[in-house]
Amino acid sequence: MSWLDEVAWGADGLIAAVAQDAASGRVLTVAWMNRLALEASLQEGRAVYWSRSRGKLWRKGEESGHVQRLIEVRLDCDGDAVLLRVEQVGGIACHTGRESCFYRVFEDGGWRVTDAVLRDPAEMYGDKARGER
Amino acid sequence: MSWLDEVAWGADGLIAAVAQDAASGRVLTVAWMNRLALEASLQEGRAVYWSRSRGKLWRKGEESGHVQRLIEVRLDCDGDAVLLRVEQVGGIACHTGRESCFYRVFEDGGWRVTDAVLRDPAEMYGDKARGER
Repeated sequence: MSWLDEVAWGADGLIAAVAQDAASGRVLTVAWMNRLALEASLQEGRAVYWSRSRGKLWRKGEESGHVQRLIEVRLDCDGDAVLLRVEQVGGIACHTGRESCFYRVFEDGGWRVTDAVLRDPAEMYGDKARGER
Repeated sequence: MSWLDEVAWGADGLIAAVAQDAASGRVLTVAWMNRLALEASLQEGRAVYWSRSRGKLWRKGEESGHVQRLIEVRLDCDGDAVLLRVEQVGGIACHTGRESCFYRVFEDGGWRVTDAVLRDPAEMYGDKARGER
């Protein structure tokens, strides 16, 4: 499909994918996509990433229920990044139970946590809480 | 510096850096940073990236004048991406003369350009218009 060939896949076959809450404008997550992931995302209307740590497709929200429904997908000028404008189901994008993965701000020479945990990760994932859910 | 060690630098020494217009909320660019670039950004209060194509530090706007002034820098949960909330000088982030690099949307099976060129790249860069300026 030609639209897939217009994407500048990296040497590792990946591009960066930024998810932004379409309503609030908040940047929620940065993850990775290969061809399969981008194709699946557009077919299914939800964010499907490539998990580098697990080496497989990762349907965002498959365990937590915190699916990212696609409102719009944009490609950048050099074709190596996509922007997903999404509806974040449950209002939680991060595996730590926070709205956004970007919950730390640089301040006074360090990273300070600014966002509250909205849902206990143990409740979201049982006893196997870690990244990429 | 410990705050630099909290960043999960990739095997290539890089992390992804997303720049977002702090006023409009629009996602402008995705670029890359190494330790030097992040340190320089925070010291200078402007976005300094690592140009993968040129293999050197890239002070965003050094040729075009379209500097990204830092309002806030955020780190994500797994530490391999930063979000820069910026003031985009000149209102143009893209080397094509558009506000955002994400000027194409996926529609009807292809990428459609949605954004107007606000400034002629030839005027911005003379006869050497290409990416990463």
